[in-house]
Amino acid sequence: MSDNETTKRAGRRALLGTTAAAAAGAGLAGGAGFGGIRTAQAQTPPRAGAAGRQRAEVAPGELDEYYVFFSSGQSGEMRIVGLPSMRELMRVPVFNRCSATGWGQTNESLKVLTEGLTPESRAFLKNRGGTFLNGDLHHPHISFTDGTYDGRYAFMNDKANTRVARVRLDVMKCDKIIQLPNQHTVHGLRLQKYPRTGYVFCNGEDGVPLPNDGKILDAPKEYYSIFTAIDGDTMKVAWQIIVDGNLDNVDADYQGKYAFSTCYNSEGGVTLAEMTSNEQDWVTIFNLKRIEEGVAKGDFKTMGGVPVLDGRHGSPYTRYVPISNNPHGINTAPDGIHVCVNGKLSPTVSVLDVRMFDQLFDDKIKPRDVVVAEPELGLGPLHTAYDGKGNAYTTLFIDSQVCKWNIDLAKRAFKGEKVEPIIDKLDVHYQPGHNHSSMGQTKEADGKWLISLNKFSKDRFLNVGPLKPENDQLIDISGDKMALVHDGPSFAEPHDATIVHSSKINPVSVWDRADPMFADAVQQAKADGVDLEADSKVIRDGNKVRVYMTSAAPVFGLEQFTVKQGDEVTVYVTNLDSVEDLTHGFCVVNYGIAMEVAPQATASVTFTADQPGVFWYYCQWFCHAMHMEMKGRMLVEPRSV
Amino acid sequence: MSDNETTKRAGRRALLGTTAAAAAGAGLAGGAGFGGIRTAQAQTPPRAGAAGRQRAEVAPGELDEYYVFFSSGQSGEMRIVGLPSMRELMRVPVFNRCSATGWGQTNESLKVLTEGLTPESRAFLKNRGGTFLNGDLHHPHISFTDGTYDGRYAFMNDKANTRVARVRLDVMKCDKIIQLPNQHTVHGLRLQKYPRTGYVFCNGEDGVPLPNDGKILDAPKEYYSIFTAIDGDTMKVAWQIIVDGNLDNVDADYQGKYAFSTCYNSEGGVTLAEMTSNEQDWVTIFNLKRIEEGVAKGDFKTMGGVPVLDGRHGSPYTRYVPISNNPHGINTAPDGIHVCVNGKLSPTVSVLDVRMFDQLFDDKIKPRDVVVAEPELGLGPLHTAYDGKGNAYTTLFIDSQVCKWNIDLAKRAFKGEKVEPIIDKLDVHYQPGHNHSSMGQTKEADGKWLISLNKFSKDRFLNVGPLKPENDQLIDISGDKMALVHDGPSFAEPHDATIVHSSKINPVSVWDRADPMFADAVQQAKADGVDLEADSKVIRDGNKVRVYMTSAAPVFGLEQFTVKQGDEVTVYVTNLDSVEDLTHGFCVVNYGIAMEVAPQATASVTFTADQPGVFWYYCQWFCHAMHMEMKGRMLVEPRSV
Repeated sequence: MSDNETTKRAGRRALLGTTAAAAAGAGLAGGAGFGGIRTAQAQTPPRAGAAGRQRAEVAPGELDEYYVFFSSGQSGEMRIVGLPSMRELMRVPVFNRCSATGWGQTNESLKVLTEGLTPESRAFLKNRGGTFLNGDLHHPHISFTDGTYDGRYAFMNDKANTRVARVRLDVMKCDKIIQLPNQHTVHGLRLQKYPRTGYVFCNGEDGVPLPNDGKILDAPKEYYSIFTAIDGDTMKVAWQIIVDGNLDNVDADYQGKYAFSTCYNSEGGVTLAEMTSNEQDWVTIFNLKRIEEGVAKGDFKTMGGVPVLDGRHGSPYTRYVPISNNPHGINTAPDGIHVCVNGKLSPTVSVLDVRMFDQLFDDKIKPRDVVVAEPELGLGPLHTAYDGKGNAYTTLFIDSQVCKWNIDLAKRAFKGEKVEPIIDKLDVHYQPGHNHSSMGQTKEADGKWLISLNKFSKDRFLNVGPLKPENDQLIDISGDKMALVHDGPSFAEPHDATIVHSSKINPVSVWDRADPMFADAVQQAKADGVDLEADSKVIRDGNKVRVYMTSAAPVFGLEQFTVKQGDEVTVYVTNLDSVEDLTHGFCVVNYGIAMEVAPQATASVTFTADQPGVFWYYCQWFCHAMHMEMKGRMLVEPRSV
Repeated sequence: MSDNETTKRAGRRALLGTTAAAAAGAGLAGGAGFGGIRTAQAQTPPRAGAAGRQRAEVAPGELDEYYVFFSSGQSGEMRIVGLPSMRELMRVPVFNRCSATGWGQTNESLKVLTEGLTPESRAFLKNRGGTFLNGDLHHPHISFTDGTYDGRYAFMNDKANTRVARVRLDVMKCDKIIQLPNQHTVHGLRLQKYPRTGYVFCNGEDGVPLPNDGKILDAPKEYYSIFTAIDGDTMKVAWQIIVDGNLDNVDADYQGKYAFSTCYNSEGGVTLAEMTSNEQDWVTIFNLKRIEEGVAKGDFKTMGGVPVLDGRHGSPYTRYVPISNNPHGINTAPDGIHVCVNGKLSPTVSVLDVRMFDQLFDDKIKPRDVVVAEPELGLGPLHTAYDGKGNAYTTLFIDSQVCKWNIDLAKRAFKGEKVEPIIDKLDVHYQPGHNHSSMGQTKEADGKWLISLNKFSKDRFLNVGPLKPENDQLIDISGDKMALVHDGPSFAEPHDATIVHSSKINPVSVWDRADPMFADAVQQAKADGVDLEADSKVIRDGNKVRVYMTSAAPVFGLEQFTVKQGDEVTVYVTNLDSVEDLTHGFCVVNYGIAMEVAPQATASVTFTADQPGVFWYYCQWFCHAMHMEMKGRMLVEPRSV
């Protein structure tokens, strides 16, 4: 390293070593914390279309090669995007309320949204319609078998209301949501990779009292942060463990032995100044076998109905590896050996060797001995992706760059050899958070594509007002140099994504009539003596009315039905069409009722017929040349006076 | 026309002349109404990238040339898309509930969503959270001055709950929503083009009793369909007029004299069989000057607080022009003369000449005399777009094609000349509804691009389960032949769109502190002696607590605040950052609270602090390298026992 380089890097360290107060000050001056640095950058001209590079364009009628399962952050949905075209193929409602599909209104979705709530939230939501209407969906990850994707499920977290959801990849619908007891928020989420998923690991980011019932309030020393392992098959909490500090991002090994989380608040602070006061925080490593043994022998307290172990310093279940400074992302390499911890307020990435964790837990080595490289990459390293050829790609938030570097070279440099691990840097636009490479979170990383999920887009798209899109940029990493090939605007917020080769995902196009999603409706119909696939009829049961109707383009099985004002009405619609893509809808005018009914599915909605009069219902999913004529009337007789 | 052609066309007519029962039967057999025809089509190989054609690809860092304001149908939002890249640039929540922005939860949005409700809906929604949570947004149109876009507003309708909304194009936020009294659903919506908007014309699709209070139920002869004109400046109903039949789509002339709507249910039927029994329905023409004179001289009844005129047959205000068969779209050409009425169940498009409407209203000619051409184009014509060069582009739903034809040739053929008006046909994928050309709904139609909004995508994208995306296809119409250049998947439902040259739209990037959107918050702060741009403090007012805090990356003005269980808490967040794109958020964990606060904006949310304990709040819109640390604690003291 030249003297000049050394000075420059020292300067960077100094900048990042600012106290929280100064940093906050920079922020108060108008976001200059990144703004000033951003504008100083020279823009690299885009290299799209250069000879021999891969292209983003997918011609009409051709298919994308990869699925990307995108987080949508505070939008609360999961998004399915095609790569390389970066076209959004589908929105899957999860934590949000969806006007189009009736998610949050149909009985089928309400069951998913409510059955996993904690008793506290259930009570809280009682007079609020029974469900949360928002979510902050951060980390969608696909279930593994033997270190690669098996196409069964996507799992994801809700930072806003401490929930974890599962989406079935055969039908692309959410089938389970669980709210975590004891824990407050769930941020980082990753899956067990081997032998299979298995565990869903969930980081509790913020500490709160246990129980958080108001008896303890402004006493941060009595706050606890919790790490949770969910059983991905049952969607029940397997165990929880209390840690020191807090928990940010998480990943797991390829051996099925360890999970590990970053901590940016080892201080246990409750203000920005406190949270950033230490120069080092840590990574917490969880020993799965020891924890399972601890659970087996009863070394836990039952709290909120689940076993909670104590994993604070001195525990056999955890080890704490000091890392500079407020580290953020943590990413296991496809080689099954290396784990990169991204320094955020330190310009470094710390590389851990998972093969040394056994010795660490046996106290044969010290925590920092598992660090085998620590290259300085630039300002604000947040996340690292891999190409499966020994190279790593780290997002630099403050520099607005992706840095390509070589793990082996970094290890040699760490040992004192005069080699430069950095291979290439590429400007991105602007302020990247997560990044992801094609199949890069599996042992089958293929080194073809990288996406950089940038938090700011500023001037990259036509101006759409004060709220701007974010910018998911597509980068060709198949050559020595990275090449930017596409800017992809996205609504709040890309946040995180998983790139899966299309061969791994095999959805159906038509629902199976025996699907558990609408099993309750099938059961109720059976009890009412109704054949859902043939009958359209109204069953009165006191002031409860069950309206069963088929839908087949362009007619509903009932072109009218009559109820009385005040009745509790449940409408079941069964879509008899079995033609691919022939979805129907059911929407009642001025009643706020709307739902999707895909081919061969049954959907139902329950409401009180408070308003008397004639109310038309119609198919709101275009189905036929006479779609506009596919309608009927709900006649609500006034309450007798 | 050759004998062969004649036979073929006669065959088509016969197919479309099927009775409703037969048509319904086709539907019951599994969507064969279109499925059978669709699969019989040979697929035209895509001609994208052919020499000399325009391309869809927009390189990184380059900007699109056009804004497209998209409907989202039953998703309830407005979408802003860039063209030709067809990338979604922004979602603007309107009738839906948005997890990310807090639309439907913030006080600012609740005011917009509730203040225009009818008394009936207000009462109905009282125990349902006060607002509808769904919408079916169909027709987004941009305000005109002198026959072209002026960049002030977008107007759009909600078919689900009979509402009309306005979006401010300076900030890209909805500022007004009005629910229409008397009318039941609003389907077609178009704007007055000259001298300016002016009127927003709204079609009431379904007939209901007046008033619809349950006293009349199953008596279709006592149902009325209503046409509404809203004043686009005040967003109040200017007048309504009762019509015979129903109302589907609408458009207006370039002279400011007429509006005209299609009717597919001249029968006044309430079943599919009844609605399709007549071989002809009609177009209803509204004489704006006569209606204004009628209102001025008191020729109306006041119902639901607005003047309602009678425009049924025999009225001076309307004329009814017979059109075959269940016509759907109606589109005024940029020449200011011709209006195309799309036959849907007839293979024809009927061309009206607006210059003859004065004579029609003066009873100097008969209704059908205003028809100056009626070309047969193919099966299921739904909508027509224009290139400004005398050509029209009509979507054929059943044929899955766009048909390019020449208006002048069609007029000559109508007069008996042996000329063929059809110039070109292009397969689209599949079942197109609306289509739109660049600036094609203005006098400045530029003939460069056409988008075809297709209802089915089937096999055009990676399979995403039973619910498929729709497909917005981009077509180059700059040459003699049309060329398909891009397939754009979209979530339910593209439905309708308006393509506007980017020079017409000029949004701001930072809010004006004097903006009316948060004027209520400014006023409340003033009353509380709080300077929103400097102070962070808590004001207690009985059991109402107002929490004022600034936000400036990466800190909130308050890192904690304390309230008591049961308090009604209003949190006002003012974003002091004035850096473009530096939006903050405010999200309270496990409280279901989340909102967007864009640069220099104030946003507020009110909730009851029912749940005691420690609840962290955080910035959920990525803002800074220390974004994760931008948080604070709400301490809720338990109710004293």
